[in-house]
Amino acid sequence: MLLLRPIVRGPWVLQRTPRLVAVAWGSHPQACAAWTPSRTHGTCSPGDGSWRWKVTAMGALLGLGAGLAYGDHRRRAAEAEPKAEATPGVPYPVFTRQEVGQHRSLAERVWVTYGSEVFDITDFVELHPGGKSKILLAAGGALEPFWAMYAVHSQEHVLEILQAYKVGELSPEEQSQPSQGDPYSGDPPRHPALKVNSLKPFNAEPPAELLTENYLTPNQLFFKRNHLPVPAVDPASYRLQLEGPGGRVLALSLPELKRRFPKHEVTVTLQCAGNRRSEMSRVRQVKGLEWGVAAISTARWGGVRLRDVLAHAGYAEEEEAEEQHVCFEGLDKDLSGVAYGASIPYRTAMGREADVLLAYEMNGEELPRDHGYPLRVVVPGVVGARSVKWLGRVSVSREESPSHWQRNDYKGFSPAVDWDTVDFTTAPAIQELPVQSAITEPTPGAAVPPGELTVKGYAWSGGGRGVVRVDVSLDGGRTWRVAELMGEEQRPGRAWAWRLWQLTAPVPPDAAELNIVCKAVDASYNVQPDTVEPIWNLRGVLSNAWHRVRVTVAED
Amino acid sequence: MLLLRPIVRGPWVLQRTPRLVAVAWGSHPQACAAWTPSRTHGTCSPGDGSWRWKVTAMGALLGLGAGLAYGDHRRRAAEAEPKAEATPGVPYPVFTRQEVGQHRSLAERVWVTYGSEVFDITDFVELHPGGKSKILLAAGGALEPFWAMYAVHSQEHVLEILQAYKVGELSPEEQSQPSQGDPYSGDPPRHPALKVNSLKPFNAEPPAELLTENYLTPNQLFFKRNHLPVPAVDPASYRLQLEGPGGRVLALSLPELKRRFPKHEVTVTLQCAGNRRSEMSRVRQVKGLEWGVAAISTARWGGVRLRDVLAHAGYAEEEEAEEQHVCFEGLDKDLSGVAYGASIPYRTAMGREADVLLAYEMNGEELPRDHGYPLRVVVPGVVGARSVKWLGRVSVSREESPSHWQRNDYKGFSPAVDWDTVDFTTAPAIQELPVQSAITEPTPGAAVPPGELTVKGYAWSGGGRGVVRVDVSLDGGRTWRVAELMGEEQRPGRAWAWRLWQLTAPVPPDAAELNIVCKAVDASYNVQPDTVEPIWNLRGVLSNAWHRVRVTVAED
Repeated sequence: MLLLRPIVRGPWVLQRTPRLVAVAWGSHPQACAAWTPSRTHGTCSPGDGSWRWKVTAMGALLGLGAGLAYGDHRRRAAEAEPKAEATPGVPYPVFTRQEVGQHRSLAERVWVTYGSEVFDITDFVELHPGGKSKILLAAGGALEPFWAMYAVHSQEHVLEILQAYKVGELSPEEQSQPSQGDPYSGDPPRHPALKVNSLKPFNAEPPAELLTENYLTPNQLFFKRNHLPVPAVDPASYRLQLEGPGGRVLALSLPELKRRFPKHEVTVTLQCAGNRRSEMSRVRQVKGLEWGVAAISTARWGGVRLRDVLAHAGYAEEEEAEEQHVCFEGLDKDLSGVAYGASIPYRTAMGREADVLLAYEMNGEELPRDHGYPLRVVVPGVVGARSVKWLGRVSVSREESPSHWQRNDYKGFSPAVDWDTVDFTTAPAIQELPVQSAITEPTPGAAVPPGELTVKGYAWSGGGRGVVRVDVSLDGGRTWRVAELMGEEQRPGRAWAWRLWQLTAPVPPDAAELNIVCKAVDASYNVQPDTVEPIWNLRGVLSNAWHRVRVTVAED
Repeated sequence: MLLLRPIVRGPWVLQRTPRLVAVAWGSHPQACAAWTPSRTHGTCSPGDGSWRWKVTAMGALLGLGAGLAYGDHRRRAAEAEPKAEATPGVPYPVFTRQEVGQHRSLAERVWVTYGSEVFDITDFVELHPGGKSKILLAAGGALEPFWAMYAVHSQEHVLEILQAYKVGELSPEEQSQPSQGDPYSGDPPRHPALKVNSLKPFNAEPPAELLTENYLTPNQLFFKRNHLPVPAVDPASYRLQLEGPGGRVLALSLPELKRRFPKHEVTVTLQCAGNRRSEMSRVRQVKGLEWGVAAISTARWGGVRLRDVLAHAGYAEEEEAEEQHVCFEGLDKDLSGVAYGASIPYRTAMGREADVLLAYEMNGEELPRDHGYPLRVVVPGVVGARSVKWLGRVSVSREESPSHWQRNDYKGFSPAVDWDTVDFTTAPAIQELPVQSAITEPTPGAAVPPGELTVKGYAWSGGGRGVVRVDVSLDGGRTWRVAELMGEEQRPGRAWAWRLWQLTAPVPPDAAELNIVCKAVDASYNVQPDTVEPIWNLRGVLSNAWHRVRVTVAED
């Protein structure tokens, strides 16, 4: 018996055609990692037959949660009847792998295998949330290697939907498929204190209360946000591909990079666009990893300046240049060979004060594998997604990176926009992040003693705009106190790292509960919005409303 | 009979010594222009004797509103007993102006005249809100010329307090004081459509609904924010004093400026730090001009680049220079000869992309007198207060401008900070402003017909961060629609001018009233805060909460 969760968190809309909302399923697991195995194990009653069950199951196959409308897509999915169906009591026909292998195109029909079963998914190809080209990679073969890459498929109800397309079985002697291996088997070991949001790809954050123990986050505890398996890079053969003006490509080894360009060190806070997403999900379900408040960390990065490297390649600091972009490609690739990618504006890359690094050191150590060994980009003041890890290639273009994560993800929308109406071309790719702060101590639900309370947290803002003040309230925002900012002030306009803060204040004698709130102000006097609802967005990014932590007051 | 308003808007705290909050009264009328003559005419019953009356009257003399605490200052004022007092029925002694003129210092005691009366204000000198040095300018002479400059004194209850220091009368033949003239008599004529917040100095904004009629605000309607009388500058003898490294001063005539440096034109929105202050005052009284939503306007400015002029003076674009400041002095001066002044960071002034101008043209016309003829600074993306008008002198310093308006005004504080606890050294001078938007149509209280409604407004953000979206709600923020942004997009990072926007939406059929709300998002995805209370600050600056306009729905 299978029991489906009534609301299923789903992966992403990747692109929108006029009549089809296509959702990631197979091509972009990076964005889909809310589907952790622990969430998707369960049992399901196929005979339950309720509308909700059907929508949920269909939504799961499509990579959509039942809680999200997907309009035309749902209609089309419902209309897509499987071409062959088993007659009760009559066995399925039996095929060889070679026979299956002859169905590799829409013209020949598209067959795949899963375990010992054969499916004709021709009519699902256009509906594939991850796009037609990605699902066709599996045409004529087994689904297992792709599903191993993209954990989003590891759900009972995805299999349920697949069943509707079953047309046969593999002949018994061919049923054992040689193991494809786990593409994540080469991932490095991780610190057990991390709170894992997704294992494959690996996404984890430290406990909030550990985060503010150190101004520089220890490498092992630094939040980890991978989009794909961690590539194994041989430092001896590693070459950074650097495309100069006119397309000439320089290949720079690590020793060359270190020898040719001066070493530069910058303390930079990186924050995931989805930090604090779980607060947004509590308002209305969003798609994405359920990050708490700790998808943000700070390190001292050492490396070479991107502007020095670009100048070496022949690029000049142009004053009135047409807007251009510096594009980065990672060495982490999906099964079709597409690398993780992102871009930043040329003026950021070349800015004298922008401090963009190609980093090979993190807190004085060699870059750890989870953080981009042997070389990564660090773009201060900008969303973490642009700080491409395992850097493979740098180029300059009049267009932003064509990467999915640049064009069709990591953008902000109005709360009025849903997956039916979203048009990713209408919003700019997130670069500089808005002002942010959160409480790390006490933790939600804690019991605090009467007397005096110390509240701790972090505050940070994008674009090098330093935090100038943090206000803390113990009564839900009715009255405020100014917190003490810790650590050194940073250079105006180049305040790339967070400020930790704390406030020690008397607990009101009659209080049984405290509603602790913090809000920060940055150097442009931007402030955090009061509430989550009005900044809710379908991707759950940019979650920077006042942080609220409720605790009870109790004698120990 | 005098009738005092129970709550009096007052001028500014200028500096804070450990035991004395000193408030502007005489020295900084620029900041005090909430005291318009029309507000302060009234009658007062000196015999009413209520606590509130006393506090109000004392507050007025001190330049403080009764609604504001002034702690130790109040105590000291109460202790400062006048040295001489009339005995009922006994006439005051009579003095000549020469005799009064012998009392010009604390040692000789400080006497002043007002009308035909003589006052010994020695014990008030230390309490003078505008500072000791400023009040001593009047020592031994008449108050009238100073009070003509600083309209804050034009209040019945200021005279009431002065009466407590009366020590005599002028001899009858000396009572007629030659007219000092009105320092504002040379101010230019203004457009009658402007809503005047203060006549002397002149501060006025256009009606909100006119503001969004044109992308470029006509010069006559551009909001006017003067701190002092408009100086009369002879363009033929005008020289810009430009202090180079080492103190060498260049004097540049207008023709030299225009000949020597390329002309540069930029469309820039300027906004007063106090724009929308009246909304903040509705939460809790603040000190400042009661600006509506129209202390913001946009013009096409023509002039020379500040960086070109500084380079000519010998300054270089230094990459790692210690933080320096470019200081501006206006030709508008107070009676003691102190000019309006402000500064901006050196990196802003020299920034290749910062577009800071010394402007001589406004919307294709010669700079109007109210806007700084013949030369003014225009600092794009930065609070209007730094765009010094009637520019007299430019210098570079390791310190910010010593000007009151740089150091002790135009800064943001926590709502927890009041005039007793404020320490102006703890907050940075406002430079870049936060994201802002407001509704200009319909106007508050309007009756709109059922059917379809068009809402119009403006949106802008500081630091060249373009506005990427405006959300509009007709139901107080429960549901949102995305407004249409008008006009051209601007260069990323150099979006110096506002976007006008509009939304046409159906009026809900059953609605009797609409609570229209707008909120903008800028390129760093910063948003406006939901409500005013948590950003309230004692100076009423940075008022950028969601703008709310209530209208009724009614057939015409």
